Amino acid sequence: MRNFNDLSQEEQNIHQYWMSKAIEQAKLAQAMGEVPIGAIIVRDGEILGQAYNQRECTHQAVAHAEILAIQAANQTSQAWRLEGASLYVTLEPCPMCAGAIINARIKEVIYGAQDPKAGCVGSLYNLPEDERFNHRIQVIAGACADETAALLSEFFQNLRNKRKKEKLINKQKGLSTEF
Amino acid sequence: MRNFNDLSQEEQNIHQYWMSKAIEQAKLAQAMGEVPIGAIIVRDGEILGQAYNQRECTHQAVAHAEILAIQAANQTSQAWRLEGASLYVTLEPCPMCAGAIINARIKEVIYGAQDPKAGCVGSLYNLPEDERFNHRIQVIAGACADETAALLSEFFQNLRNKRKKEKLINKQKGLSTEF
Repeated sequence: MRNFNDLSQEEQNIHQYWMSKAIEQAKLAQAMGEVPIGAIIVRDGEILGQAYNQRECTHQAVAHAEILAIQAANQTSQAWRLEGASLYVTLEPCPMCAGAIINARIKEVIYGAQDPKAGCVGSLYNLPEDERFNHRIQVIAGACADETAALLSEFFQNLRNKRKKEKLINKQKGLSTEF
Repeated sequence: MRNFNDLSQEEQNIHQYWMSKAIEQAKLAQAMGEVPIGAIIVRDGEILGQAYNQRECTHQAVAHAEILAIQAANQTSQAWRLEGASLYVTLEPCPMCAGAIINARIKEVIYGAQDPKAGCVGSLYNLPEDERFNHRIQVIAGACADETAALLSEFFQNLRNKRKKEKLINKQKGLSTEF
Protein backbone atom coordinates (compact mmCIF):
# COMPACT_ATOMS: atom_id res chain seq x y z
CA MET A 1 0.00 0.00 0.00
CA ARG A 2 1.33 3.45 -0.93
CA ASN A 3 0.28 6.76 0.45
CA PHE A 4 -0.89 9.38 -2.04
CA ASN A 5 1.47 12.00 -0.56
CA ASP A 6 4.49 9.80 -1.35
CA LEU A 7 3.75 9.72 -5.11
CA SER A 8 5.44 11.93 -7.72
CA GLN A 9 3.68 15.19 -8.62
CA GLU A 10 2.73 13.77 -12.02
CA GLU A 11 1.19 10.65 -10.49
CA GLN A 12 -0.68 12.80 -7.97
CA ASN A 13 -2.07 14.99 -10.77
CA ILE A 14 -3.44 12.00 -12.69
CA HIS A 15 -5.03 10.42 -9.61
CA GLN A 16 -6.45 13.78 -8.52
CA TYR A 17 -8.08 14.19 -11.93
CA TRP A 18 -9.92 10.86 -11.73
CA MET A 19 -10.70 11.25 -8.04
CA SER A 20 -12.43 14.56 -8.84
CA LYS A 21 -14.81 12.53 -11.05
CA ALA A 22 -15.49 10.15 -8.13
CA ILE A 23 -16.17 13.21 -5.94
CA GLU A 24 -18.69 14.43 -8.54
CA GLN A 25 -20.44 11.07 -8.14
CA ALA A 26 -20.37 11.42 -4.33
CA LYS A 27 -22.09 14.81 -4.67
CA LEU A 28 -24.89 13.20 -6.70
CA ALA A 29 -25.45 10.83 -3.74
CA GLN A 30 -25.45 13.80 -1.36
CA ALA A 31 -28.09 15.60 -3.47
CA MET A 32 -30.36 12.56 -2.99
CA GLY A 33 -29.84 12.44 0.77
CA GLU A 34 -27.58 9.36 0.49
CA VAL A 35 -24.24 9.07 2.31
CA PRO A 36 -21.92 10.85 -0.18
CA ILE A 37 -19.64 8.16 -1.59
CA GLY A 38 -18.72 7.94 -5.27
CA ALA A 39 -16.65 5.58 -7.42
CA ILE A 40 -15.28 5.47 -10.94
CA ILE A 41 -13.51 2.73 -12.91
CA VAL A 42 -10.97 3.73 -15.54
CA ARG A 43 -8.89 1.77 -18.06
CA ASP A 44 -6.56 3.24 -20.69
CA GLY A 45 -7.94 6.72 -20.02
CA GLU A 46 -11.54 5.61 -20.60
CA ILE A 47 -14.31 5.55 -17.99
CA LEU A 48 -15.75 2.01 -17.88
CA GLY A 49 -18.22 2.67 -15.06
CA GLN A 50 -19.13 5.25 -12.44
CA ALA A 51 -21.70 5.27 -9.68
CA TYR A 52 -22.70 6.64 -6.29
CA ASN A 53 -24.05 5.09 -3.12
CA GLN A 54 -27.78 4.37 -3.47
CA ARG A 55 -28.51 2.13 -0.50
CA GLU A 56 -31.47 4.07 0.89
CA CYS A 57 -33.29 4.95 -2.32
CA THR A 58 -33.00 1.44 -3.80
CA HIS A 59 -33.47 -0.46 -0.48
CA GLN A 60 -30.50 -2.56 -1.57
CA ALA A 61 -27.83 -3.46 1.00
CA VAL A 62 -25.31 -4.06 -1.78
CA ALA A 63 -25.91 -0.73 -3.60
CA HIS A 64 -22.57 0.77 -2.53
CA ALA A 65 -20.80 3.02 -5.04
CA GLU A 66 -18.05 0.43 -5.78
CA ILE A 67 -20.48 -2.44 -6.45
CA LEU A 68 -22.60 -0.32 -8.80
CA ALA A 69 -19.48 0.98 -10.60
CA ILE A 70 -18.19 -2.61 -11.04
CA GLN A 71 -21.57 -3.68 -12.40
CA ALA A 72 -21.51 -0.77 -14.85
CA ALA A 73 -17.93 -1.56 -15.93
CA ASN A 74 -18.80 -5.26 -16.40
CA GLN A 75 -21.75 -4.17 -18.54
CA THR A 76 -19.60 -1.78 -20.61
CA SER A 77 -16.87 -4.33 -21.23
CA GLN A 78 -19.19 -7.38 -21.37
CA ALA A 79 -16.71 -9.19 -19.14
CA TRP A 80 -16.60 -9.91 -15.41
CA ARG A 81 -12.80 -9.55 -15.44
CA LEU A 82 -11.67 -5.91 -15.25
CA GLU A 83 -7.95 -6.63 -15.61
CA GLY A 84 -5.85 -3.50 -16.04
CA ALA A 85 -8.58 -1.25 -14.59
CA SER A 86 -8.22 1.29 -11.78
CA LEU A 87 -11.01 1.91 -9.29
CA TYR A 88 -11.23 5.33 -7.60
CA VAL A 89 -13.49 5.63 -4.56
CA THR A 90 -13.93 8.52 -2.14
CA LEU A 91 -14.01 6.31 0.99
CA GLU A 92 -11.96 3.24 1.97
CA PRO A 93 -13.94 0.18 0.83
CA CYS A 94 -15.89 -2.03 3.29
CA PRO A 95 -15.32 -5.85 3.30
CA MET A 96 -18.01 -6.40 0.65
CA CYS A 97 -16.53 -3.85 -1.74
CA ALA A 98 -12.92 -4.91 -1.06
CA GLY A 99 -14.01 -8.47 -1.91
CA ALA A 100 -15.81 -7.33 -5.07
CA ILE A 101 -12.63 -5.51 -6.18
CA ILE A 102 -10.69 -8.78 -5.75
CA ASN A 103 -13.40 -10.79 -7.56
CA ALA A 104 -13.41 -8.36 -10.51
CA ARG A 105 -9.60 -8.70 -10.91
CA ILE A 106 -9.17 -4.92 -10.74
CA LYS A 107 -5.51 -3.78 -11.04
CA GLU A 108 -5.43 -0.96 -8.50
CA VAL A 109 -7.66 0.81 -6.02
CA ILE A 110 -7.17 4.46 -5.12
CA TYR A 111 -9.23 5.77 -2.22
CA GLY A 112 -9.72 9.06 -0.38
CA ALA A 113 -10.80 9.12 3.27
CA GLN A 114 -10.02 6.27 5.64
CA ASP A 115 -12.84 4.31 7.31
CA PRO A 116 -11.58 3.22 10.73
CA LYS A 117 -14.92 1.50 11.55
CA ALA A 118 -15.36 -0.79 8.54
CA GLY A 119 -12.49 -0.17 6.11
CA CYS A 120 -10.91 -3.34 4.74
CA VAL A 121 -8.16 -1.78 2.62
CA GLY A 122 -5.77 -0.83 5.41
CA SER A 123 -7.88 -0.05 8.50
CA LEU A 124 -9.42 -3.27 9.94
CA TYR A 125 -7.94 -5.55 7.27
CA ASN A 126 -6.07 -5.18 4.00
CA LEU A 127 -7.96 -7.72 1.91
CA PRO A 128 -6.79 -6.62 -1.59
CA GLU A 129 -3.15 -7.13 -0.61
CA ASP A 130 -3.66 -10.52 1.09
CA GLU A 131 -1.46 -12.90 -0.92
CA ARG A 132 -3.69 -15.89 -0.15
CA PHE A 133 -6.37 -14.70 -2.58
CA ASN A 134 -5.92 -15.60 -6.26
CA HIS A 135 -5.53 -11.95 -7.25
CA ARG A 136 -3.68 -9.05 -5.65
CA ILE A 137 -4.38 -5.38 -6.06
CA GLN A 138 -2.14 -2.34 -5.74
CA VAL A 139 -3.46 0.18 -3.24
CA ILE A 140 -3.04 3.96 -2.98
CA ALA A 141 -4.56 5.54 0.14
CA GLY A 142 -5.36 9.18 0.92
CA ALA A 143 -6.04 10.69 -2.54
CA CYS A 144 -7.92 14.00 -2.01
CA ALA A 145 -8.26 12.78 1.59
CA ASP A 146 -9.27 16.15 3.06
CA GLU A 147 -11.97 16.87 0.50
CA THR A 148 -13.49 13.37 0.60
CA ALA A 149 -13.44 13.30 4.43
CA ALA A 150 -15.01 16.80 4.60
CA LEU A 151 -17.86 15.68 2.32
CA LEU A 152 -18.71 12.89 4.75
CA SER A 153 -18.28 14.80 8.01
CA GLU A 154 -20.41 17.68 6.67
CA PHE A 155 -23.13 15.21 5.65
CA PHE A 156 -23.24 13.56 9.08
CA GLN A 157 -23.13 16.94 10.85
CA ASN A 158 -26.15 18.12 8.83
CA LEU A 159 -27.93 14.84 9.61
CA ARG A 160 -27.32 15.27 13.35
CA ASN A 161 -28.54 18.90 13.22
CA LYS A 162 -31.68 17.84 11.33
CA ARG A 163 -32.45 15.11 13.86
CA LYS A 164 -31.90 17.48 16.80
CA LYS A 165 -34.30 19.98 15.19
CA GLU A 166 -36.93 17.27 14.57
CA LYS A 167 -36.59 16.10 18.18
CA LEU A 168 -37.07 19.65 19.43
CA ILE A 169 -40.14 20.20 17.21
CA ASN A 170 -41.66 16.90 18.39
CA LYS A 171 -40.97 17.85 22.01
CA GLN A 172 -42.63 21.24 21.52
CA LYS A 173 -45.61 19.57 19.84
CA GLY A 174 -45.88 17.21 22.81
CA LEU A 175 -45.85 20.15 25.22
CA SER A 176 -48.46 22.10 23.25
CA THR A 177 -50.89 19.16 23.31
CA GLU A 178 -50.59 18.96 27.09
CA PHE A 179 -52.67 22.17 27.44
CA MET B 1 -19.23 -20.53 14.98
CA ARG B 2 -20.97 -23.84 15.51
CA ASN B 3 -20.54 -27.03 13.56
CA PHE B 4 -23.66 -28.54 12.01
CA ASN B 5 -22.86 -31.95 13.51
CA ASP B 6 -22.95 -30.50 17.04
CA LEU B 7 -26.58 -29.31 16.71
CA SER B 8 -29.61 -31.18 18.05
CA GLN B 9 -31.41 -33.55 15.66
CA GLU B 10 -34.35 -31.15 15.43
CA GLU B 11 -32.10 -28.18 14.54
CA GLN B 12 -30.28 -30.34 11.97
CA ASN B 13 -33.60 -31.32 10.36
CA ILE B 14 -34.71 -27.70 9.95
CA HIS B 15 -31.37 -26.57 8.51
CA GLN B 16 -31.23 -29.61 6.21
CA TYR B 17 -34.68 -28.73 4.86
CA TRP B 18 -33.68 -25.18 3.89
CA MET B 19 -30.23 -26.25 2.67
CA SER B 20 -31.93 -28.70 0.29
CA LYS B 21 -33.60 -25.63 -1.29
CA ALA B 22 -30.19 -23.93 -1.65
CA ILE B 23 -28.90 -27.15 -3.26
CA GLU B 24 -31.81 -27.01 -5.75
CA GLN B 25 -30.60 -23.51 -6.67
CA ALA B 26 -27.02 -24.78 -7.05
CA LYS B 27 -28.29 -27.42 -9.48
CA LEU B 28 -29.90 -24.68 -11.60
CA ALA B 29 -26.45 -23.05 -11.86
CA GLN B 30 -24.92 -26.41 -12.82
CA ALA B 31 -27.51 -26.88 -15.59
CA MET B 32 -26.33 -23.57 -17.09
CA GLY B 33 -22.65 -24.50 -16.92
CA GLU B 34 -22.04 -22.15 -13.98
CA VAL B 35 -20.11 -23.21 -10.85
CA PRO B 36 -22.91 -24.88 -8.80
CA ILE B 37 -23.49 -22.60 -5.81
CA GLY B 38 -26.96 -21.75 -4.51
CA ALA B 39 -28.33 -19.55 -1.73
CA ILE B 40 -31.67 -18.95 -0.04
CA ILE B 41 -32.81 -16.36 2.52
CA VAL B 42 -35.53 -17.32 4.98
CA ARG B 43 -37.38 -15.41 7.70
CA ASP B 44 -40.22 -16.76 9.86
CA GLY B 45 -40.54 -19.81 7.63
CA GLU B 46 -40.91 -17.69 4.49
CA ILE B 47 -38.47 -17.54 1.55
CA LEU B 48 -37.47 -13.88 1.01
CA GLY B 49 -35.02 -14.54 -1.79
CA GLN B 50 -33.18 -17.35 -3.56
CA ALA B 51 -30.60 -17.39 -6.32
CA TYR B 52 -27.70 -19.23 -7.93
CA ASN B 53 -24.29 -18.20 -9.16
CA GLN B 54 -24.56 -16.49 -12.57
CA ARG B 55 -21.14 -14.94 -13.00
CA GLU B 56 -20.39 -16.31 -16.45
CA CYS B 57 -23.77 -15.86 -18.12
CA THR B 58 -24.28 -12.29 -16.84
CA HIS B 59 -20.59 -11.21 -17.17
CA GLN B 60 -21.00 -9.74 -13.68
CA ALA B 61 -18.18 -10.25 -11.13
CA VAL B 62 -20.64 -9.67 -8.28
CA ALA B 63 -23.28 -12.16 -9.49
CA HIS B 64 -22.54 -14.70 -6.74
CA ALA B 65 -25.51 -16.65 -5.33
CA GLU B 66 -25.46 -14.78 -1.99
CA ILE B 67 -25.43 -11.28 -3.56
CA LEU B 68 -28.31 -12.15 -5.90
CA ALA B 69 -30.29 -13.73 -3.03
CA ILE B 70 -29.75 -10.62 -0.86
CA GLN B 71 -30.87 -8.39 -3.74
CA ALA B 72 -34.01 -10.52 -4.16
CA ALA B 73 -34.74 -10.46 -0.40
CA ASN B 74 -34.25 -6.65 -0.29
CA GLN B 75 -36.69 -6.39 -3.20
CA THR B 76 -39.25 -8.67 -1.50
CA SER B 77 -39.09 -6.84 1.82
CA GLN B 78 -38.49 -3.36 0.33
CA ALA B 79 -35.79 -2.87 2.95
CA TRP B 80 -32.01 -3.14 2.88
CA ARG B 81 -32.00 -4.46 6.45
CA LEU B 82 -32.74 -8.18 6.63
CA GLU B 83 -32.79 -8.41 10.44
CA GLY B 84 -33.97 -11.78 11.73
CA ALA B 85 -33.24 -13.52 8.42
CA SER B 86 -31.17 -16.68 7.87
CA LEU B 87 -29.01 -17.13 4.77
CA TYR B 88 -28.28 -20.68 3.57
CA VAL B 89 -25.51 -21.13 1.02
CA THR B 90 -23.94 -24.30 -0.34
CA LEU B 91 -20.33 -22.97 -0.18
CA GLU B 92 -18.53 -20.88 2.45
CA PRO B 93 -18.89 -17.21 1.40
CA CYS B 94 -16.00 -15.25 -0.18
CA PRO B 95 -14.96 -11.84 1.30
CA MET B 96 -17.45 -9.96 -0.89
CA CYS B 97 -20.39 -12.15 0.13
CA ALA B 98 -19.36 -12.29 3.81
CA GLY B 99 -19.26 -8.47 3.72
CA ALA B 100 -22.67 -8.29 2.00
CA ILE B 101 -24.13 -10.54 4.72
CA ILE B 102 -22.80 -8.10 7.37
CA ASN B 103 -24.10 -5.07 5.42
CA ALA B 104 -27.59 -6.61 5.08
CA ARG B 105 -27.77 -7.21 8.89
CA ILE B 106 -28.57 -10.89 8.36
CA LYS B 107 -29.06 -12.83 11.64
CA GLU B 108 -27.35 -16.10 10.78
CA VAL B 109 -25.48 -17.79 7.96
CA ILE B 110 -25.54 -21.54 7.46
CA TYR B 111 -23.15 -22.95 4.87
CA GLY B 112 -22.26 -26.32 3.41
CA ALA B 113 -18.78 -27.00 2.01
CA GLN B 114 -15.72 -25.13 3.24
CA ASP B 115 -13.70 -22.98 0.83
CA PRO B 116 -10.06 -23.12 2.00
CA LYS B 117 -8.92 -20.86 -0.89
CA ALA B 118 -11.24 -17.84 -0.47
CA GLY B 119 -13.67 -18.58 2.38
CA CYS B 120 -14.10 -15.69 4.82
CA VAL B 121 -16.47 -17.35 7.28
CA GLY B 122 -13.97 -19.55 9.10
CA SER B 123 -11.25 -20.47 6.57
CA LEU B 124 -9.06 -17.43 5.74
CA TYR B 125 -11.00 -15.02 7.99
CA ASN B 126 -14.19 -15.07 9.99
CA LEU B 127 -15.61 -11.66 9.00
CA PRO B 128 -19.23 -12.16 10.20
CA GLU B 129 -18.04 -12.88 13.74
CA ASP B 130 -15.54 -9.98 13.91
CA GLU B 131 -16.80 -7.86 16.82
CA ARG B 132 -15.34 -4.66 15.32
CA PHE B 133 -18.07 -4.48 12.68
CA ASN B 134 -21.37 -2.87 13.69
CA HIS B 135 -23.27 -6.14 13.25
CA ARG B 136 -22.42 -9.72 14.19
CA ILE B 137 -23.80 -12.86 12.64
CA GLN B 138 -24.21 -16.35 14.03
CA VAL B 139 -22.51 -18.97 11.89
CA ILE B 140 -23.22 -22.68 11.36
CA ALA B 141 -20.67 -24.52 9.20
CA GLY B 142 -20.90 -27.89 7.48
CA ALA B 143 -24.65 -28.28 6.77
CA CYS B 144 -25.05 -31.02 4.13
CA ALA B 145 -21.28 -30.66 3.73
CA ASP B 146 -20.77 -33.92 1.79
CA GLU B 147 -23.53 -33.25 -0.72
CA THR B 148 -22.55 -29.60 -1.35
CA ALA B 149 -18.85 -30.49 -1.67
CA ALA B 150 -19.65 -33.40 -4.04
CA LEU B 151 -21.65 -31.05 -6.31
CA LEU B 152 -18.60 -28.82 -6.69
CA SER B 153 -15.95 -31.53 -7.05
CA GLU B 154 -18.08 -33.33 -9.66
CA PHE B 155 -18.50 -30.05 -11.60
CA PHE B 156 -14.75 -29.34 -11.65
CA GLN B 157 -13.94 -32.98 -12.54
CA ASN B 158 -16.31 -32.78 -15.53
CA LEU B 159 -14.75 -29.47 -16.55
CA ARG B 160 -11.24 -30.96 -16.44
CA ASN B 161 -12.37 -33.99 -18.46
CA LYS B 162 -14.04 -31.72 -21.05
CA ARG B 163 -10.90 -29.60 -21.39
CA LYS B 164 -8.69 -32.69 -21.74
CA LYS B 165 -11.00 -34.01 -24.49
CA GLU B 166 -10.96 -30.64 -26.32
CA LYS B 167 -7.18 -30.51 -26.09
CA LEU B 168 -6.93 -34.02 -27.54
CA ILE B 169 -9.33 -33.18 -30.39
CA ASN B 170 -7.38 -29.97 -31.19
CA LYS B 171 -4.11 -31.95 -31.12
CA GLN B 172 -5.57 -34.56 -33.50
CA LYS B 173 -6.86 -31.81 -35.81
CA GLY B 174 -3.38 -30.27 -35.78
CA LEU B 175 -1.83 -33.62 -36.75
CA SER B 176 -4.34 -34.24 -39.55
CA THR B 177 -3.61 -30.84 -41.12
CA GLU B 178 0.08 -31.69 -41.25
CA PHE B 179 -0.55 -34.20 -44.04
